[in-house]
Amino acid sequence: MNILDIITRKKNGESLSYDELKYAFNGYLNGEIPDYQMSALLMAITINGMSMSETISLTDIFIKSGEIYDLHNRMQYVVDKHSTGGVGDSTTLVIGPLCAALGLHMAKMSGRGLGYTGGTIDKLEAIPGFNVLPSIQDFYDQVENIGFAISAQTPNLVPLDKLIYALRDVTGTTESIPLIASSIMSKKIAAGANNILIDIKVGSGALIKTEEDAKQLSKWLIAIGEAYERNVKTIISDMNTPLSFAIGNALEVIEAINVLNGKKCPLLDASLEIAANLLSMAKRIPYEEAYKQAEEAIYSKKALKKFAEFVSNQGGDLANLNVSKRVIPVKAKIDGVIKNIDALGAAKLAQKLGASKMKLDDKIDYSVGIMLKVKKGDIVKRGDLLMYLYVGDTLPKLRNVDFEFINIV
Amino acid sequence: MNILDIITRKKNGESLSYDELKYAFNGYLNGEIPDYQMSALLMAITINGMSMSETISLTDIFIKSGEIYDLHNRMQYVVDKHSTGGVGDSTTLVIGPLCAALGLHMAKMSGRGLGYTGGTIDKLEAIPGFNVLPSIQDFYDQVENIGFAISAQTPNLVPLDKLIYALRDVTGTTESIPLIASSIMSKKIAAGANNILIDIKVGSGALIKTEEDAKQLSKWLIAIGEAYERNVKTIISDMNTPLSFAIGNALEVIEAINVLNGKKCPLLDASLEIAANLLSMAKRIPYEEAYKQAEEAIYSKKALKKFAEFVSNQGGDLANLNVSKRVIPVKAKIDGVIKNIDALGAAKLAQKLGASKMKLDDKIDYSVGIMLKVKKGDIVKRGDLLMYLYVGDTLPKLRNVDFEFINIV
Repeated sequence: MNILDIITRKKNGESLSYDELKYAFNGYLNGEIPDYQMSALLMAITINGMSMSETISLTDIFIKSGEIYDLHNRMQYVVDKHSTGGVGDSTTLVIGPLCAALGLHMAKMSGRGLGYTGGTIDKLEAIPGFNVLPSIQDFYDQVENIGFAISAQTPNLVPLDKLIYALRDVTGTTESIPLIASSIMSKKIAAGANNILIDIKVGSGALIKTEEDAKQLSKWLIAIGEAYERNVKTIISDMNTPLSFAIGNALEVIEAINVLNGKKCPLLDASLEIAANLLSMAKRIPYEEAYKQAEEAIYSKKALKKFAEFVSNQGGDLANLNVSKRVIPVKAKIDGVIKNIDALGAAKLAQKLGASKMKLDDKIDYSVGIMLKVKKGDIVKRGDLLMYLYVGDTLPKLRNVDFEFINIV
Repeated sequence: MNILDIITRKKNGESLSYDELKYAFNGYLNGEIPDYQMSALLMAITINGMSMSETISLTDIFIKSGEIYDLHNRMQYVVDKHSTGGVGDSTTLVIGPLCAALGLHMAKMSGRGLGYTGGTIDKLEAIPGFNVLPSIQDFYDQVENIGFAISAQTPNLVPLDKLIYALRDVTGTTESIPLIASSIMSKKIAAGANNILIDIKVGSGALIKTEEDAKQLSKWLIAIGEAYERNVKTIISDMNTPLSFAIGNALEVIEAINVLNGKKCPLLDASLEIAANLLSMAKRIPYEEAYKQAEEAIYSKKALKKFAEFVSNQGGDLANLNVSKRVIPVKAKIDGVIKNIDALGAAKLAQKLGASKMKLDDKIDYSVGIMLKVKKGDIVKRGDLLMYLYVGDTLPKLRNVDFEFINIV
């Protein structure tokens, strides 16, 4: 087998066999295939696509590149959820405890944020003492005992995906549905869940730009799940507007607690929907019944109690969560109606304040961010409060354009 | 400007501006853009194509990456020819002296061979003492005084093309018409000719596989020439059959001398056609008149005299040309007609004998090769001579299949 033939065949739009994909991708993992050949192959795949059977082959090669965890041998109702990335998306912090309160088991491997997309691990690191890298033993024990644990992805889970993802990120090959599908599904399958819900975010700022692409991706994810006898369900949701009022690490932890306390907001609705889907899939009960149980777990504070248990079990000290004391109100300059709140614009402002990294060696200030005080459709008058900025020691130069993500007409 | 945006735009099939192409390709030359990003961009260009204006932009960026020689300020009839690669193609060794005899000036920058395609520089190195790297001063003085000189391409002529060509070679991105066109034309324009003939070889073993692609490439080459006010003409020729009876370095030098001595064969016909085209373009005379002058230069031995002058001026000693003394005749095993002589198969056999490199660190035996004694259409009887093998000290194991490139039916 020859890597040039493989690249050329994909360049010409042909299908690659399992063995050809294995030769190329395992060769890359072993260092035998250099970056520049893999990036040429990834670009050819991105432009010319892959068939369902190629995508299932690639997923299998990804899975087998690392350790595979058979959680469902140890626990009955193992669930997992994944979101294709969004702004102000703290659902994991709500859904995890909520699922645990419903008797499900969620062993969540999460990532860090880069660019404008936040990462659950960064949010948890805002909690003093929180250990994002428990031992595998402690991690699974906590899942079994409490029902929910989070770990920054271990180096042994789908190592090939980490390598390929890093290369795709710098070669313009992120927007490929087959590559996205095999990346997501390989991690979910290797991590061991048998009931998987994927929340596909659609919007201008998201990886998936159109409803049509989202439907395509959904088809792909479900087909891969079937090949591995995993129960996969997808929901497609809009990410043009931030899901949460809070953007910034400590602020999002607080907002998650507010939601677990029953605060009515889009984040609560989204969390109930996801948890109800997972419960319905795992226990094979009707969705409506599952939804009622999820609501009950919120209003009885069972889910909130699970959250406190989860945080303290991983060493976190919520009492000392550090939110900046320098708070600046931002007010409306005109009368009008909030026509739109652009998620990407909000994330860019939060990033300017120091809430996320643009480059890998940037530092995050966990205490800064934005707390929105209005939502789409609200009527505001000149001088009304739009948001609070939580700022760090040095305030970056902000311009009018930085606030235009709230569109008042 | 941002390389990821540029790659993504080309991935999406959009056109890139001059400044975007400059940012990407000059960035690569300067080491700011890594291999893996350039190979992703090259793959996107190969699959999605480039417009004529993008191709002209890229050619300009290539040209300006190195030194530019304005030969036409020093000499009146500066011509150049390029062949897109073939087997047993010694036309340069015939055309150079022939053009010089016709009062034209040709400053030929040539390459070495790799794989099955021979390189003019390798052929000249078969001549003891021949200096393939004269100083720039000596090179142009010789062009002015004798009319013809050859140099292994200087490092300062289109350095960007060398880099990009090496990357294309290992990333499955060689078969892109816009990239081939800018590679060829940038070198011809930077080298200073104002009358350029491009011989586009078409065939299964060639870079250009179909007549249609050849016509497309031709259009591109002429358009780039127009943008630089250079006279460009193309001829499309078949390379399925070797042009010359000789394949092997010293053997091809001898064959070139035979042709300059008036030996009737396809190589003479091809050389007359190219020289007549160049003369007609440079001096603006009818092609038929130019062809007659070219024939006269052969039969009067003027061209042969120029060849001797050219070789001795570059230090070569033709009297001591080393052709192997171990000669093995190969005879026909059946009666029949020569239906085809496959150029690639002949080149593979010559390569087995040591006439060309497969890897960069292989050694060439200049004295070995094949001298064909039959041509397409010849009637042969069992036992008739088909070719002589000129072999080195160690004869490789040859099998029947190695001789099947001569198809007798």
